[in-house]
Amino acid sequence: MPDKLNILVWNEGVHEARNEPETMAEMYPSGIHGAIAEGLKGFYPDSSITTATLADPEHGLSEETLAATDVLLWWGHVAHAEVSDEVVERVQRHVLGGMGLIVLHSGHFARIFTKLLGTTCSLKWRNDGERELVWTVKPSHPIAAGVESPIVIPKQEMYGELFDIPEPDDLIFISSFEGGEVFRSGVTFSRGKGRIFYFSPGDQEYPVYHQPQIQQVIANGVGWVAQPAQFREAPGVGNARRDWYL
Amino acid sequence: MPDKLNILVWNEGVHEARNEPETMAEMYPSGIHGAIAEGLKGFYPDSSITTATLADPEHGLSEETLAATDVLLWWGHVAHAEVSDEVVERVQRHVLGGMGLIVLHSGHFARIFTKLLGTTCSLKWRNDGERELVWTVKPSHPIAAGVESPIVIPKQEMYGELFDIPEPDDLIFISSFEGGEVFRSGVTFSRGKGRIFYFSPGDQEYPVYHQPQIQQVIANGVGWVAQPAQFREAPGVGNARRDWYL
Amino acid sequence: MPDKLNILVWNEGVHEARNEPETMAEMYPSGIHGAIAEGLKGFYPDSSITTATLADPEHGLSEETLAATDVLLWWGHVAHAEVSDEVVERVQRHVLGGMGLIVLHSGHFARIFTKLLGTTCSLKWRNDGERELVWTVKPSHPIAAGVESPIVIPKQEMYGELFDIPEPDDLIFISSFEGGEVFRSGVTFSRGKGRIFYFSPGDQEYPVYHQPQIQQVIANGVGWVAQPAQFREAPGVGNARRDWYL
Amino acid sequence: MPDKLNILVWNEGVHEARNEPETMAEMYPSGIHGAIAEGLKGFYPDSSITTATLADPEHGLSEETLAATDVLLWWGHVAHAEVSDEVVERVQRHVLGGMGLIVLHSGHFARIFTKLLGTTCSLKWRNDGERELVWTVKPSHPIAAGVESPIVIPKQEMYGELFDIPEPDDLIFISSFEGGEVFRSGVTFSRGKGRIFYFSPGDQEYPVYHQPQIQQVIANGVGWVAQPAQFREAPGVGNARRDWYL
Repeated sequence: MPDKLNILVWNEGVHEARNEPETMAEMYPSGIHGAIAEGLKGFYPDSSITTATLADPEHGLSEETLAATDVLLWWGHVAHAEVSDEVVERVQRHVLGGMGLIVLHSGHFARIFTKLLGTTCSLKWRNDGERELVWTVKPSHPIAAGVESPIVIPKQEMYGELFDIPEPDDLIFISSFEGGEVFRSGVTFSRGKGRIFYFSPGDQEYPVYHQPQIQQVIANGVGWVAQPAQFREAPGVGNARRDWYL
Repeated sequence: MPDKLNILVWNEGVHEARNEPETMAEMYPSGIHGAIAEGLKGFYPDSSITTATLADPEHGLSEETLAATDVLLWWGHVAHAEVSDEVVERVQRHVLGGMGLIVLHSGHFARIFTKLLGTTCSLKWRNDGERELVWTVKPSHPIAAGVESPIVIPKQEMYGELFDIPEPDDLIFISSFEGGEVFRSGVTFSRGKGRIFYFSPGDQEYPVYHQPQIQQVIANGVGWVAQPAQFREAPGVGNARRDWYL
Repeated sequence: MPDKLNILVWNEGVHEARNEPETMAEMYPSGIHGAIAEGLKGFYPDSSITTATLADPEHGLSEETLAATDVLLWWGHVAHAEVSDEVVERVQRHVLGGMGLIVLHSGHFARIFTKLLGTTCSLKWRNDGERELVWTVKPSHPIAAGVESPIVIPKQEMYGELFDIPEPDDLIFISSFEGGEVFRSGVTFSRGKGRIFYFSPGDQEYPVYHQPQIQQVIANGVGWVAQPAQFREAPGVGNARRDWYL
Repeated sequence: MPDKLNILVWNEGVHEARNEPETMAEMYPSGIHGAIAEGLKGFYPDSSITTATLADPEHGLSEETLAATDVLLWWGHVAHAEVSDEVVERVQRHVLGGMGLIVLHSGHFARIFTKLLGTTCSLKWRNDGERELVWTVKPSHPIAAGVESPIVIPKQEMYGELFDIPEPDDLIFISSFEGGEVFRSGVTFSRGKGRIFYFSPGDQEYPVYHQPQIQQVIANGVGWVAQPAQFREAPGVGNARRDWYL
């Protein structure tokens, strides 16, 4: 993995502000974004790991910030509609230009995700605190490196097929739930010069982001979606309308 | 191929209205849409083949019309921006719900195409009337059935890589041009329950849509993207938000 | 689907000859191959549907027979090693040349399957008669047409990941089992001009091939892998070593 | 890229032994393998880069050697048939177990390549010393990092479609030739836990492996197919028949 990355963990931050559910403050005292950032520190000790939320000016996603970001992680749930058109388009442009993007859990309905994929990204769900098993199906992929198969998550919200996404470039993980549902829980996409990793485990009601194996997958994902700066500037790759990107 | 389909050929119709280039009226006396529809008749004698243009009410793409359409073909060039938001979203919804879509040539910049794919869909181009060779690279695909490899197009506009699209589900044709450029000229995508075929040959300056082999490919494409009605209503396929589609 | 096909259902026929398990004769009185052939008749009333077994001369897979076959279905389990090199190579050549192939259940270890895929095709298994749920994850695919999601199989042998196959062209079905395992149970591959569909449900101990929905999937598979004869002879498709195929 | 790798460049070494063509000794004084190894040194100064040929005991590919190899590069042309069954099976087993494999140019007919892919891997060819242009079509892939598009190779043997390979996991480069042919010249595959990269430029008659941009691509490929040792031993990934691999 690259030594020094600029990693930005974005969270709408609404569950934290409302303390919903009531366990939120205790489970994630520094917010879901704080926990994710904390989990990454052990893997990227020399990298810059910062956070931003919806309430920040420009949602903390200014042109300047994105231009300096190698990997953006996205967590959202109840406030997708409040992310401005301008910011969604700006993030899309940076992803197409080479910035890595990791979308987590309920971020499947984030406007940036549906905009990049072109489908509804809808799915089945049921929140009964079921056991989730995350099975590796592409062991040759770096995102699966060092990951147990299955990862056992004691309690999780069920996400089930049909997951309305385009055919992913890589299908790395498939989950099952106690009710018998299955879900393509770890998938990658390439869009323009950028890489996207979607990983479904993680919810505001369960302490999933504290599990070491989940942290391992997210750290692997960061390494995989990251594109060293010089890569974005390869001579001659690009097209007649280079400025459409960055 | 299915016997009876409702096929709708859409063209912005602006080159025809302006008679630009001057050869248009002679080359395509019933418009580009008319030529495409004509080419399909021999392959689908029992199907309904109609046309619509930008100037029609709702661009000829009302909810009622789309609900009755199995396959929509799309040709546009100079007026992409004039297609209304409402119609673009409506077409997207019907594609996700199972309507087949074929996007031709300069339709790569059509709003419906970029919306479904999530990328810029930009490409290199040069209009010097170069010979295009269309090579089959996936001979097991029905869209390649009965197609010579290569198809020789005596004069065409060059479209070249980098073609900024997501990785296609199927790569069926790759073209080369006299200048040495290459282009993924026949590609498919699945989005929701719908199928999409993009085929690049065809231009307002060259009589490409009169070539029998080009007509064969487009007819094959119609058969492939078509989804019989009962298929859209398979029991239990779908998801918790079925109404998001149709 | 094509009207008239030559469909050949191959079964090693060893469980039948030994009546192992003891329920075999009652469950599949005309053999597993007989039941599969029977299930196809309702879908292909005008097609020729025949069967062959390991004990037949050349295993019933002579050059002449294969040359006249559009779709070959394959069921094997305990006698993979007894299929001769010559026949395996012959079948491979015909698949590459355009003959459709459907491999069922324990056929994952058939020599023709591992030879075409290049991997071990190994998997996890456990035979406890568990409920299998077969979920559709690619609803735009013809093999999913008219198929309920999930198909419920009351008792089945568990097949679980890691299924050591190359990345499939299409992932259509994912199964879950009571023990929590998942399996890519319906996958397609293209090899040369031929199409391959692997479908895992079906076992010598459970009457799976009598289930109407399983019969529907297999019938859909036959339609999808079938390649009309003229297709194999498209002018110019092919290569400098055409004779390597047929 | 990983700092320390064990890289083994294999060449049949027959053109060198016969000095065919006559330019061989001057063009590649340390053999094709020597040139490839030399090109890698600048990119992997801390790695072990060794070579082996057909004439070595066990072709230089003993169990012990392969067990210590992270990446194997393969160049062969006239002596594919002389590689022993035992060595082909051994290499396959190590690739499935996680060893990276890069197959170059006429290695498309190497027995290890056709065995891993399951197709004939045949193609069109013509040796007229034509200009080849290598275009990047997947700029988000690490193998394309720092690579000009197109790479211009002044004189090359033409390799053209139809290239009879399974659909690759990634299509990174497409080449065109002066005669108008196209070729999928840079493609990847995953098989088991191993990664494979095929790259077509390079021939015994042209000094292609001395071109810095070609060296860049091969070096990128080495980095991409390499699998750190701990990765092969991820707990629980694997299957009931782990010993089938290593």
